[in-house]
Amino acid sequence: MRLRRKPGTREKLMNEFEEYVVNEPGKLRGRWRDVLDREEIQVEFGSGKGRFITTKAVNEPDTGFIGVEKEPEVLLKTAKKAEEGQPENLKLLYFDVAGAEAVFAQGELDRIYLNFSDPWPKRRHSKRRLTHRDFLAMYGRLLAPGGEIHFKTDNRGLFEFSLNEFCAAGWDMKNIRLDYGLMEAPGDVPTEYEERFRSLGQSIYRLEAWLRQA
Amino acid sequence: MRLRRKPGTREKLMNEFEEYVVNEPGKLRGRWRDVLDREEIQVEFGSGKGRFITTKAVNEPDTGFIGVEKEPEVLLKTAKKAEEGQPENLKLLYFDVAGAEAVFAQGELDRIYLNFSDPWPKRRHSKRRLTHRDFLAMYGRLLAPGGEIHFKTDNRGLFEFSLNEFCAAGWDMKNIRLDYGLMEAPGDVPTEYEERFRSLGQSIYRLEAWLRQA
Repeated sequence: MRLRRKPGTREKLMNEFEEYVVNEPGKLRGRWRDVLDREEIQVEFGSGKGRFITTKAVNEPDTGFIGVEKEPEVLLKTAKKAEEGQPENLKLLYFDVAGAEAVFAQGELDRIYLNFSDPWPKRRHSKRRLTHRDFLAMYGRLLAPGGEIHFKTDNRGLFEFSLNEFCAAGWDMKNIRLDYGLMEAPGDVPTEYEERFRSLGQSIYRLEAWLRQA
Repeated sequence: MRLRRKPGTREKLMNEFEEYVVNEPGKLRGRWRDVLDREEIQVEFGSGKGRFITTKAVNEPDTGFIGVEKEPEVLLKTAKKAEEGQPENLKLLYFDVAGAEAVFAQGELDRIYLNFSDPWPKRRHSKRRLTHRDFLAMYGRLLAPGGEIHFKTDNRGLFEFSLNEFCAAGWDMKNIRLDYGLMEAPGDVPTEYEERFRSLGQSIYRLEAWLRQA
């Protein structure tokens, strides 16, 4: 989603939602388990309007959750949702996923969620897709051994691309679904996009993957 | 496909098409490369009406091809197609795939084709699906190291099941397609079923898999 940058958004985030929004997340690199005071850390890359990550945080108070969204304006919506539920186990960060290794240390994450990521349908943009093998290699470094990626999308082309990328990059997969039912996976939460696509009768695709240990 | 057994079919096959149909294939176990006088042997399990395997044999004379179909009456259609093209590198066998290890020795096959296999949609019949992990384990024994399975189907449920089975059974995959274009893979041949499904606008799914070496 491309938005016009509204002046003052960063300041608003910083001032009004300082309980949730971390403005300089790189300073906490390697310390997220301490910051969230939880042993397990799960991150959503591209948290969008934020229903998924805020609901997860409320539903699972023993796990630490982090929502990452490039656009501060979009993250603001998530911060407002967080204010309603008041979870103590949630942090919200705005940065480009490509720079995630400046924010998270090796093995610091236990699970990564990719929900309805931008499909970047043109072939020349394939490196921007969040399931491109270069991203998968980075996720492999960020995840603790056995840590999983949970990926869902309505976009058949992106899902097909992703299946091949996971295979080529040496990940194992399970629970691959080509017609994923609402909340079929334990603990899953439908995103705003997901509800809209479902209401249009479109198929949702989903998989879980973990890096094969050498 | 379930057909009433017509009396005399076996005899007809034996007598009229002895160039192609092998009536006691178990006697040639371990000798198929010699029988076909080719170094590479590719088998289609469930060859149906036979266009795929007969066309492959005509198109690729340096490779040995074997069509396996449970029903002699169905195999007869293939034998008739073979008579037209007169390939010297084709044999046709009728037996249930479950018994394939009585016909082929370990490592004797270089490629297995599964085209539009019966989806057996009921969960309690899942062990009958030709991509069930028990079948995959058998194919792994029959295939030479690096040998591949090429699988295509119009059935989304079967394809989803198969993706998960290949993953669970330790196979690597490539060229996974959720909307496979006509003859997109080099050397591919559309089956009779495939043409019908395509004419109805249905998606075709396809993948290539090989057993990961320990």
